[in-house]
Amino acid sequence: MTTATLLLSGGLDSTTLLAHLQRQGVHLHALAVDYGQRHERELESAEAIAAEYDVPLDRVDLSHLGLLLPSALTARGLMPEGHYTADSMAATVVPNRNAILLSVAAAHASARGYDKVATAVHAGDHHIYPDCRPEFIGAFSDATWLSCGVSIAARFMYWTKTDIARHAVRLGVPIDLTWSCYRGWTEHCGRCGTCVERAEALHHATDGNDPTRYTDPDFWRGVAS
Amino acid sequence: MTTATLLLSGGLDSTTLLAHLQRQGVHLHALAVDYGQRHERELESAEAIAAEYDVPLDRVDLSHLGLLLPSALTARGLMPEGHYTADSMAATVVPNRNAILLSVAAAHASARGYDKVATAVHAGDHHIYPDCRPEFIGAFSDATWLSCGVSIAARFMYWTKTDIARHAVRLGVPIDLTWSCYRGWTEHCGRCGTCVERAEALHHATDGNDPTRYTDPDFWRGVAS
Repeated sequence: MTTATLLLSGGLDSTTLLAHLQRQGVHLHALAVDYGQRHERELESAEAIAAEYDVPLDRVDLSHLGLLLPSALTARGLMPEGHYTADSMAATVVPNRNAILLSVAAAHASARGYDKVATAVHAGDHHIYPDCRPEFIGAFSDATWLSCGVSIAARFMYWTKTDIARHAVRLGVPIDLTWSCYRGWTEHCGRCGTCVERAEALHHATDGNDPTRYTDPDFWRGVAS
Repeated sequence: MTTATLLLSGGLDSTTLLAHLQRQGVHLHALAVDYGQRHERELESAEAIAAEYDVPLDRVDLSHLGLLLPSALTARGLMPEGHYTADSMAATVVPNRNAILLSVAAAHASARGYDKVATAVHAGDHHIYPDCRPEFIGAFSDATWLSCGVSIAARFMYWTKTDIARHAVRLGVPIDLTWSCYRGWTEHCGRCGTCVERAEALHHATDGNDPTRYTDPDFWRGVAS
């Protein structure tokens, strides 16, 4: 049986990946990383989801990285609104963030004798996050294998957000438990990049029955791709 | 002019690399990482060395990783004694540690627009630390370049510890300010892997005039390579 450390943010993508891999019989251990993000709300979602799927969850606090790596996700800067793939979203890029998360997850996996790190990066991430692109994941997986015998599995690499949302519906993922919003209020803002991306994908996947509560539920229609 | 984030542990290798690159005109910014190591004493050395060379130093606290990644370096396990390259030193391996340090340093460099990450990994590290080997550094540098436009420079990759110690003497490095011991007492223990390696190298480089104070100054003679 394959074993894997799964990077679980508490968002729709990693939750769907968890459901997908668990159904395939992969033995999973979830890892949630606090890297000083403003949306700590997503860590609470990760806990609820791990409990729902009966998967062990470790949390690691790397919040001091936020001091080192200013970005709109970790600092008090202005949160850009609009479509996730727009150039304005560059303000949400924490440089090399995914590489850091994958390195830590690979260490977690290696220390426990697991085969893989599972990450839910997908095609929608490629435009603004260079460390979510296939060529990066390939080179990084090679390096990680050499370092500690763990490879990186990115099952959704070529999937769109809507592909993932449709798969979530198919697998019966508890969408209401997941959290995407970069703002971290009590409900999804509906205006930040990930809210727009989520609302658009779930609208299509659920035939307009997205269970998420958005403060501004129709904003995405004006900026969607 | 080349600019670089230099991973400064406060040990002999990274201090010598700092002196070497500064003399070559590289604009350096030092980064010291607290990853929960027992030898926090080395972080104090990093501060003294950065001050000596008038290089800015950032510290980042990743000490929570110690909880996630048990090893003799971070936990209260038995510290193995003897030669650094012996198989018993495997207990000091924090899996994927170097990959994590390099990922964080690359983020630091990228956020500031620097070209490179400088790391003092050397030939003596290859035997027990897979993530210090040339094939790892090459694959990892490729990945990091794709992720954030920063490459990894490992100038001492094929140097032995004695090569570095001789170079330190040549460059007038303040050897007494550096700290190698894994134990983190007030003076070097002389018996742990890095103490044995340091004592042997500095003995040869200084013609027997190593300025380091060891609690057990002659232990290395019985186990040296």
